[in-house]
Amino acid sequence: MRLSSYFMPTLKENPIEAQIVSHRLMLRAGLIYQTASGIYAWLPLGLRVLKKIIKIVREEQNRAGAQELLMPTIQLADLWKESGRYNDYGKELLRISDRHNREMLFGPTNEEMITAIFRDSVKSFRELPKILYHIQWKFRDELRPRFGVMRGREFLMKDGYSFDIDSLSSKRSYNRMFVAYMKTFTRMGLKAIPTRADSGPIGGDLSYEFHILAENGDDTLFVHRDLIESNWKNRDVDYDSDLQFIIDEFVNKCAVTEEKYDLTKMTNDIIKVHGIEVGHIFNFGTKYSKAMNAKVTGSNGKLVELEMGSYGIGVSRLVGALIEAFHDDAGIVWPESVAPFRLGIINLKKNDSCCSAVCEKLYNDLGDDVLYDDRDERVGVKLTDMDLIGLPWSIIVGPRSIVNDRVELKNRKTGEYQELSIEAIMKRFAT
Amino acid sequence: MRLSSYFMPTLKENPIEAQIVSHRLMLRAGLIYQTASGIYAWLPLGLRVLKKIIKIVREEQNRAGAQELLMPTIQLADLWKESGRYNDYGKELLRISDRHNREMLFGPTNEEMITAIFRDSVKSFRELPKILYHIQWKFRDELRPRFGVMRGREFLMKDGYSFDIDSLSSKRSYNRMFVAYMKTFTRMGLKAIPTRADSGPIGGDLSYEFHILAENGDDTLFVHRDLIESNWKNRDVDYDSDLQFIIDEFVNKCAVTEEKYDLTKMTNDIIKVHGIEVGHIFNFGTKYSKAMNAKVTGSNGKLVELEMGSYGIGVSRLVGALIEAFHDDAGIVWPESVAPFRLGIINLKKNDSCCSAVCEKLYNDLGDDVLYDDRDERVGVKLTDMDLIGLPWSIIVGPRSIVNDRVELKNRKTGEYQELSIEAIMKRFAT
Repeated sequence: MRLSSYFMPTLKENPIEAQIVSHRLMLRAGLIYQTASGIYAWLPLGLRVLKKIIKIVREEQNRAGAQELLMPTIQLADLWKESGRYNDYGKELLRISDRHNREMLFGPTNEEMITAIFRDSVKSFRELPKILYHIQWKFRDELRPRFGVMRGREFLMKDGYSFDIDSLSSKRSYNRMFVAYMKTFTRMGLKAIPTRADSGPIGGDLSYEFHILAENGDDTLFVHRDLIESNWKNRDVDYDSDLQFIIDEFVNKCAVTEEKYDLTKMTNDIIKVHGIEVGHIFNFGTKYSKAMNAKVTGSNGKLVELEMGSYGIGVSRLVGALIEAFHDDAGIVWPESVAPFRLGIINLKKNDSCCSAVCEKLYNDLGDDVLYDDRDERVGVKLTDMDLIGLPWSIIVGPRSIVNDRVELKNRKTGEYQELSIEAIMKRFAT
Repeated sequence: MRLSSYFMPTLKENPIEAQIVSHRLMLRAGLIYQTASGIYAWLPLGLRVLKKIIKIVREEQNRAGAQELLMPTIQLADLWKESGRYNDYGKELLRISDRHNREMLFGPTNEEMITAIFRDSVKSFRELPKILYHIQWKFRDELRPRFGVMRGREFLMKDGYSFDIDSLSSKRSYNRMFVAYMKTFTRMGLKAIPTRADSGPIGGDLSYEFHILAENGDDTLFVHRDLIESNWKNRDVDYDSDLQFIIDEFVNKCAVTEEKYDLTKMTNDIIKVHGIEVGHIFNFGTKYSKAMNAKVTGSNGKLVELEMGSYGIGVSRLVGALIEAFHDDAGIVWPESVAPFRLGIINLKKNDSCCSAVCEKLYNDLGDDVLYDDRDERVGVKLTDMDLIGLPWSIIVGPRSIVNDRVELKNRKTGEYQELSIEAIMKRFAT
């Protein structure tokens, strides 16, 4: 993409309404635009990040055996009356009447709808187990939306649901998602810490929250050093095997939030850290299948209530959480896997035909994931903007080094510059 | 994907509520599930088609120079009061009150929101022209939703908006979209016919509808034979050039709906055909920029109202339209570019170790876009289901031919079978 024609409205000043760094940087770098309280449009640069996150979430869900579908945003209130949640949910539920005065709502989650779909479609234990997920916009009418996309009203969530014949099988589905979540967040460059959680109003007794570490995270966690140091990056997982041994690695060394912190159950080497919740998994047994009469025929021919779990990832929230985890005074510092572009090119002197020719060549040859700053702007503005939007690498093409066929490569994270030949650059970044 | 574990709830009977063939087949083949009147969940098989359509739409938009962003579904009523449409729009607009009794709505289209975003972000003619688009769920509270996804209430639309400094430049943006639409529908295997349209309540005087040909299409069109026979498939387009000559190809030979059919303006060789509307482009000048005070500084330093256009494609509607265009008595006949899987594998004898071994090998080697019917079902059921879901090709592996290392390849469209060696199959379908 050529920056001269790209729709990337950056701000020079810090927007006063933004209280936290990720919100500030998302507005300043032109990732989002606020259209109403707690509701945002994703501008092209922000949408690119969102899509890279979606891709990773999707790939890891599929790898773990989950299947993608897509449920609508608007739901019938009747479904929520079946489960009993229509009255329980309170004012965060956006209630809607259609032109025939039918009660509807903008879904904040989809347990009821997926249970209804499953109940009507699957009749026998032979079709189990199944994990179904979707990635869809949700609405939660927060009393005081704040922190940008971290606590917005319209937000993008990946929510998955498992259906099993018995609790043993259901625990295996739950374990798959546990492991898939660790892999998902790790691929985004994040350090994820699973903490045992209250299952809350959703019911059931098996629940984990996933926090990612960030210095200014809202939540305080106590984490064993082993977990901080463990490396999930290249961990191979056979999802068809029993994954319980992996979950067991977290027991008691596992992090817990302050109120539940029980030192006696933990070994030494506990570190106090801060985190942001980005995922939540529940195994809630037959809560919804019982209320909504969702049964299949078991192997003995008798009807059995489905054992279910639900698994959420805050997809749009992750964009904010990533920035909270990865930024410095100059702007965002994207990990490579989720950067809006993997590479920037800065033309220091646009009216130098040699600089421009090299930039054009690099831009044309290095693929689609490149942002080329071809604007007629001062050098300082270009370098500052590139730091602000935080691409992992930028190639700086200036008249001094270009006479020797060399350019500079800047590492956004370390701030280091390296002079390299054009050939070496091509080799390194060729797709 | 292995069909034995795939969530694809097909129906044996024709659902009585479905009046048209695409609706019937979408329910029967397990593409969609109705969750409320005019609201559907996209089951895994249907979602795959939707995604392939999205991919084509997105690629052709990007190629034409449009940039993708993503606006939210929920909008402030205030925006629509600025343009004057809040009162005009009537009961199809789903009006919503949030917990603070603020008036909101579920967007049926986004002219107001994109104008507001643009007005706040772009200040100078130097940043023009721009075409921005998004692919987002919309809601239109139809009085009588029907025909499945063809006239649903919650639907997926690609809507794009162009911003230019003057009407000449605006016409060039409009022409780009015209050509991009022809290429988009052609890539889906469809024959697209652009017809001049009333610009309706959206305003302005330059407008085309795009119909695709389908025997039972709602609309009657009169089309010159040249247009029916013209081939857009391999047509190269330079979007930076003046595209008017392409648009001129359609003038007067162009199809028109019955009420406007004016024989005198047309040459001979007119054919009467049926079509389904899947796209609509408008150039509406300063209608919204004037009402919403969206101006930029022109080259003379004075403020100028933006010249705008809007460009819609009914993305979810296209799934239905494609089936209306491509089906037979046995089911759907997908064009290759939008088929949910490009290839099926049918194992005729699951307990034959040789058949199963060959199927496994083909399935593992031929990539992700393959559906393997590994179910323990009768041969008739497998063949019938494969015809119903309409994959372009299926490889049929049976005990008789496998002894000679051969399998059958079925072409869904022609119904022709061909016996081929496994090696030839691998070569043909290797990704």
